Amino acid sequence: MRMKLKLKTVFLLYFVVSLLGLFYALMQLGQHCDCTDQLLLKDRTVSQLRRELQKLQEAFRKPSESEKLSKNPSLPTIYVVTPTYARLVQKAELTRLSLTLLHVPRLHWIVVEDSPQPTPLVRDLLAVSGLAYTHLHVPTPKDMKLQEKDPTWLKPRGVEQRNEAMRWLREMAAAAAVEQAVVYFADDDNTYSLKVFEEMRFTQRVSVWPVGLVGGMRYEGPVVENGKVVRFHTGWRPSRPFPIDMAGFAVSLRLVVAHPGARFDRSAQIGFLESSLLQGLVTMKELEPKADMCTKILVWHTRTEKPKIKREEIMQKQGMGSDLNVEV
Amino acid sequence: MRMKLKLKTVFLLYFVVSLLGLFYALMQLGQHCDCTDQLLLKDRTVSQLRRELQKLQEAFRKPSESEKLSKNPSLPTIYVVTPTYARLVQKAELTRLSLTLLHVPRLHWIVVEDSPQPTPLVRDLLAVSGLAYTHLHVPTPKDMKLQEKDPTWLKPRGVEQRNEAMRWLREMAAAAAVEQAVVYFADDDNTYSLKVFEEMRFTQRVSVWPVGLVGGMRYEGPVVENGKVVRFHTGWRPSRPFPIDMAGFAVSLRLVVAHPGARFDRSAQIGFLESSLLQGLVTMKELEPKADMCTKILVWHTRTEKPKIKREEIMQKQGMGSDLNVEV
Repeated sequence: MRMKLKLKTVFLLYFVVSLLGLFYALMQLGQHCDCTDQLLLKDRTVSQLRRELQKLQEAFRKPSESEKLSKNPSLPTIYVVTPTYARLVQKAELTRLSLTLLHVPRLHWIVVEDSPQPTPLVRDLLAVSGLAYTHLHVPTPKDMKLQEKDPTWLKPRGVEQRNEAMRWLREMAAAAAVEQAVVYFADDDNTYSLKVFEEMRFTQRVSVWPVGLVGGMRYEGPVVENGKVVRFHTGWRPSRPFPIDMAGFAVSLRLVVAHPGARFDRSAQIGFLESSLLQGLVTMKELEPKADMCTKILVWHTRTEKPKIKREEIMQKQGMGSDLNVEV
Repeated sequence: MRMKLKLKTVFLLYFVVSLLGLFYALMQLGQHCDCTDQLLLKDRTVSQLRRELQKLQEAFRKPSESEKLSKNPSLPTIYVVTPTYARLVQKAELTRLSLTLLHVPRLHWIVVEDSPQPTPLVRDLLAVSGLAYTHLHVPTPKDMKLQEKDPTWLKPRGVEQRNEAMRWLREMAAAAAVEQAVVYFADDDNTYSLKVFEEMRFTQRVSVWPVGLVGGMRYEGPVVENGKVVRFHTGWRPSRPFPIDMAGFAVSLRLVVAHPGARFDRSAQIGFLESSLLQGLVTMKELEPKADMCTKILVWHTRTEKPKIKREEIMQKQGMGSDLNVEV
């Protein structure tokens, strides 16, 4: 009995204790692990962070409007051809023009010097310009050069240089298989709004627009009816095939390449230089009018005064001239 | 004995079963919760994502060099004062200049028209320029105006307009408590390199540099010895207090404010206009030579030819003139 009782007591005690222990253990087991909720929370944090990261990465990859334009390989390149020659205002003019062109995305500047060698002035200016460029040079034959006292309109200028640029463009296009691009002949003294480059960007054949302050007029330019160029507003010889200023049109590179013989004619009559090129490329009907159907002036035929440096000559004779090592 | 045995067996059985159960439960308890490792992993993912996010956010916040400059509030603002007047080339000139200024960080363009009212041409041009600007206007009194056939040097031009800009600047500075800023008088026909703005940026009193193609010389400018301006290289009246072109100096705004009476003198003798302002502000010794001790030409006194529009007049008489609604 004692044994019985003793055993019973021990058993009961153990029974109670172990049962409690088991219950406790089972409760613990049955209960969700504390960290399940934590895991859920973490998961939420992770996906939130992932979303933020993705958003930021996308925003980061998204370039600004101008970067998008300049890097967009589907945007046709504009090849700007600028003939230039050594003179007192040359550096000023090229500096000014370069600062305009620097705003234009996907632009390649072809500067063609009228000289037997490339000059350090132009070379250095281009090198620091921040522009994509090609530096060419070809001298104008002596018999084609304007003499000191000739009026500027007596002989066409920049002819050899523009043709040299077209030669380079055709070679480059053949080598690089350029699909879409546009060629614009932009002299270094004119004034260009940025809009004129937007207008010419998607030229299919030849696009045209008016030019301000040219030919003794407020402006000259194509006259558009029903979306087509029907004639030209000009003060002089409207019968010319294309009575249009060099600054008033752009040509698709494809067209230049397709007509390997098309070029500016150095023996063209006064005022017929533009026509000499365009005649070989398009008809008037095919011209693409830009600038709000040729009603907006986006380019001006400005001319810079030739500086008078008489005082310099006097001073030089007195040994007090400007330091010739200072590049102007 | 039977009872004993039975109880003992039940006890042992229960003992074994409960012990196993307990062991299992305790093992489960003792073992780390499965998700602890998972939590650790998640934590690692979270902190990695946070790091990436932070890096990207920093990169995103980091502006480009020019943005940094333009937004850097410690960079002194350059106030460019440009007097202008209605003429055929006005829009071209202002367009060209605006495209240069658009490259310069922290620049504020003050355009002052010589007219009784602001004109739509200038107003619209400024509105789309992309520049920070202030549009002012003040007419030049009739007796101070150049007549059609007067040579351009006969009377000083832009005097009232530049003084009006200084009035505005002093008021603005008082209201906005501007600390450091610089004032530059930039006419709309000159040519400016971007470097000239860098050079003038930290002007303490008056900084100076040479100007190309001015005064009948290749260039005019201060002559520097031992870091100080000792005289001026000029072709005409070097005895003037400051024989220096308007484009050849910049003044700290603080100095303009400190001398509320300093202004351009409308009755100044020919060539003494710049001196009339500078005399009230500095001495020659105090001038700060820039542009490599005044040996580099960073600004050119270019002049644009007045366009001849005789043909336009003839055409207008024939009823074939240019459309006057087309802004040139």
